[in-house]
Amino acid sequence: MNETRVPGSRPAVDSGRRRFLIEIPALAAAMAACGPTEVAKRTGATDTATTPAAETTTQPTQNADSRSDTSLHRAMPATSSVPGASPAAAAVPFHRIDPTLPPVSRERVTRLHFTVKETPIRVRDDTVVAAWTFDGDIPGPIVHVRQGDRVEFTLTNAGSIPHSMDFHAAQLDPKVAFRSVMPGQSISYSFAPRYAGAFLYHCGTAPVLMHLGSGMFGAIVVDPPTPLPRAKEVVLVESEFYLGAPVNGIAPFDYTKMLATLPDLFAFNGRPAQYQAAPIHVTHGELVRFHVVNAGPTHPCAFHVVGEQFDTVYLGAPPGSAIHGVQTYSVPAGGGMIFEMRADHPGEFVFVNHAFGHGQKGAIGTLVVDG
Amino acid sequence: MNETRVPGSRPAVDSGRRRFLIEIPALAAAMAACGPTEVAKRTGATDTATTPAAETTTQPTQNADSRSDTSLHRAMPATSSVPGASPAAAAVPFHRIDPTLPPVSRERVTRLHFTVKETPIRVRDDTVVAAWTFDGDIPGPIVHVRQGDRVEFTLTNAGSIPHSMDFHAAQLDPKVAFRSVMPGQSISYSFAPRYAGAFLYHCGTAPVLMHLGSGMFGAIVVDPPTPLPRAKEVVLVESEFYLGAPVNGIAPFDYTKMLATLPDLFAFNGRPAQYQAAPIHVTHGELVRFHVVNAGPTHPCAFHVVGEQFDTVYLGAPPGSAIHGVQTYSVPAGGGMIFEMRADHPGEFVFVNHAFGHGQKGAIGTLVVDG
Amino acid sequence: MNETRVPGSRPAVDSGRRRFLIEIPALAAAMAACGPTEVAKRTGATDTATTPAAETTTQPTQNADSRSDTSLHRAMPATSSVPGASPAAAAVPFHRIDPTLPPVSRERVTRLHFTVKETPIRVRDDTVVAAWTFDGDIPGPIVHVRQGDRVEFTLTNAGSIPHSMDFHAAQLDPKVAFRSVMPGQSISYSFAPRYAGAFLYHCGTAPVLMHLGSGMFGAIVVDPPTPLPRAKEVVLVESEFYLGAPVNGIAPFDYTKMLATLPDLFAFNGRPAQYQAAPIHVTHGELVRFHVVNAGPTHPCAFHVVGEQFDTVYLGAPPGSAIHGVQTYSVPAGGGMIFEMRADHPGEFVFVNHAFGHGQKGAIGTLVVDG
Repeated sequence: MNETRVPGSRPAVDSGRRRFLIEIPALAAAMAACGPTEVAKRTGATDTATTPAAETTTQPTQNADSRSDTSLHRAMPATSSVPGASPAAAAVPFHRIDPTLPPVSRERVTRLHFTVKETPIRVRDDTVVAAWTFDGDIPGPIVHVRQGDRVEFTLTNAGSIPHSMDFHAAQLDPKVAFRSVMPGQSISYSFAPRYAGAFLYHCGTAPVLMHLGSGMFGAIVVDPPTPLPRAKEVVLVESEFYLGAPVNGIAPFDYTKMLATLPDLFAFNGRPAQYQAAPIHVTHGELVRFHVVNAGPTHPCAFHVVGEQFDTVYLGAPPGSAIHGVQTYSVPAGGGMIFEMRADHPGEFVFVNHAFGHGQKGAIGTLVVDG
Repeated sequence: MNETRVPGSRPAVDSGRRRFLIEIPALAAAMAACGPTEVAKRTGATDTATTPAAETTTQPTQNADSRSDTSLHRAMPATSSVPGASPAAAAVPFHRIDPTLPPVSRERVTRLHFTVKETPIRVRDDTVVAAWTFDGDIPGPIVHVRQGDRVEFTLTNAGSIPHSMDFHAAQLDPKVAFRSVMPGQSISYSFAPRYAGAFLYHCGTAPVLMHLGSGMFGAIVVDPPTPLPRAKEVVLVESEFYLGAPVNGIAPFDYTKMLATLPDLFAFNGRPAQYQAAPIHVTHGELVRFHVVNAGPTHPCAFHVVGEQFDTVYLGAPPGSAIHGVQTYSVPAGGGMIFEMRADHPGEFVFVNHAFGHGQKGAIGTLVVDG
Repeated sequence: MNETRVPGSRPAVDSGRRRFLIEIPALAAAMAACGPTEVAKRTGATDTATTPAAETTTQPTQNADSRSDTSLHRAMPATSSVPGASPAAAAVPFHRIDPTLPPVSRERVTRLHFTVKETPIRVRDDTVVAAWTFDGDIPGPIVHVRQGDRVEFTLTNAGSIPHSMDFHAAQLDPKVAFRSVMPGQSISYSFAPRYAGAFLYHCGTAPVLMHLGSGMFGAIVVDPPTPLPRAKEVVLVESEFYLGAPVNGIAPFDYTKMLATLPDLFAFNGRPAQYQAAPIHVTHGELVRFHVVNAGPTHPCAFHVVGEQFDTVYLGAPPGSAIHGVQTYSVPAGGGMIFEMRADHPGEFVFVNHAFGHGQKGAIGTLVVDG
């Protein structure tokens, strides 16, 4: 990547309609790494590795976006911010994220079109964050498909800086499929998940830590060819919050704090402790299947349900790679595992990241087994 | 939970005989969450989920104790303290914890009666801590039962604030069985462990981080129906110490430091490096079985024996969920795993949390294989 | 260990030719713990536990080296340093570490002779560290042998303080085989690896955290009796850097920072992000086998390849202890695991510690699949 392509610290691509001030070399460089020829038109990438002509570069063995991850980590402190959005911020309502796994598509081809939106989100009563999102929320939409079926995916960047999409369920050349998209542009690619499981997706634009840590993640659940036994299925995406001082009532995500790895808050599905305020309900006797995906960006999630034990934890693709009779198991950052228990006792069962210095900061909720 | 139920910052339940000053909203609220109607009499709970009448509340879908975990984590700094105990503290002797797994009960029903005691404990020559304990020590008693047999458990709270008991080996409604008990009161419940393994038990009163982090934990080992091969069996419960400045010679556990997740000390069985000063002895040729339970509250334990390899590590319930030929495996906070090695070389083998920034702080000991 | 054996804060064994100033009680004590009778002559140790006469001590049940690990952790801040080496430091060139697993020895006995060297190493363009090494580099030489074959190992200490060698692939009495060697002396021992896998080796001299954290580690890969399928095999040893302010252009490793567990940098094979600057190449269609060994000293490595999934991860000795269809799995500090993927898509695949607050600091590289 030629640093001289970055004329100043301000990116030249601010949208007039709405600006995220990115006054830092790191993000300016990230934008520069995504040259106009790459994103001037909507291009297609598939897992047959068809590379559009626009992809031709002078650095064939190097993914500039990814390389910059490390070279930029000592850049000036970065924060996400939403100047001028204060009045809107005060009005942003809180809403709970439904953790229910949506039904699997009946079609052999699932078409997804996500839009990147940089937008304030109220993550609890007293906290609105300057979020970078897929489709306007943290986490992004939960996707549910079958192993081997095709996902046709389009990402449109309605934000003010480059973004991208990295599906952990896909096997694709990241340099092509997961490359950064300039504001106002789109990219499309398709893939057929080779393995079943609960997978993370996230923005892969450098610095990944900043994009992942600012809200750009979600989960894709892939069913095996022979479905697992019928169950109440919920998806819990754990993440960490590293927040700067609020500006006009909106707390920015703070890159320097992300690098320091001491989070302020944790959450399942983007709101600290939301399922304590409004629990998840299941019925007595049901099999409950937790798809636990850990967005991180950094710490493991030691998943546990108080008063219960997991009959099965799938460390890899179900129905294989299973262990049984487990109190707690750790999902690494960037990983996903599936936890099953039988709701054979009515009552109120707290699920928690049992790394309690983290769980206590919001990675905690309640599962109510209705009798 | 109605905050107006907390009239002031001082709990009203101080015992005259001995006080732990809890001058903080977090614990005051925790006490309030445990209303007098719940604990005014000794109640019974079983895994058939019989809820005593006193359990009826106006918030049927919410476990007030657990909910407060998160809502309170930004409360004023909390420390455990033992005012006026200074003379006694100086006289508190150090004693080593015997790590030997006690024999399994021959009875089909194991009756346990633990008493919560808030008491100074000398954890090494120069350090006495203001501990919250089960039966006066860190860790609490090691329990050893068989899968399917019944445990009839009673907890009596001889402390000054509410406490409770959460057995990871039990499948029970936590709202009933694991609820907080007021000082001077007792609670009873019973359970039949469904799975074999090495399980944590700990106080589940909010904020759990504070109670777990102040010494309220121990281990219960559950044998499978067909016992594992005869072995020298030891139990190692790892934990972290977050200590404030000593008051009258006694170091309090510090809740703010727990939230900051950077521990001062680590220990197996409550005393940093106690088994370096007084090693664990086994005989040449013996199978050695380590039941490694990680109380945390936060960090994983990367268990390793210098100069040895584990023939088997049980990630879940033995005899299944086993892997073989392992140098080091990580037990998550709130988890437990079983590690087996053959002592086929006489010598001195250091066992350690190989996350050495943690092991070096006291999660280290010596296994002597006598020739 | 008798502290009175340490007459002053300066070790008496400085080599005239080159000095590492060790002005701290911790290391002085470590040196004292390794008395002259133990290392005055070259001694041999084998896995049949033959203890040379010189090994006789007055503390038969205690490994003084290991015991000091904990007792010393509150010593004065320690740093590695290379006074007077400034001119040489500026001239130290950067070189990339070849990650290719060397061919397995065709002999039934592999003879290794490593030399401890305390030497400046350029780990990236702007950073030279005061390293303690095996054979002058970080990591030390990659060893590749077959399960059951014999390794005859000799360590010569050409450094200025005591050092030692702990092979995780060996089953030996550490008190004999892994004991500290005084400067100018050597030790020999042999072992026959019982299990296949990817194992860490490291200096085991107290405080281990300091020696391991200052560069004294490497990997030994042990093939199973029936070799795994032919593959492109690479070895990635992850480690953390805790650096003090440079002295004469050389950054010392800082023991106090190691204890604080917040690393400055991470690397695969000793250079942050070296495989982004100069990627690892494989051929389209090849099976790729990553031997991921985590030297730590403290944090787990959540290993992931962007745009790929692991067909197999061996949690223990291959070909057993395997899970399949894995996006990310965590290798504990002091552990090693083997990750396999099929390079069935040409392109550029970033491999990373997906604990991104760590990966972003240098535990990241690029795998190019040439079409």
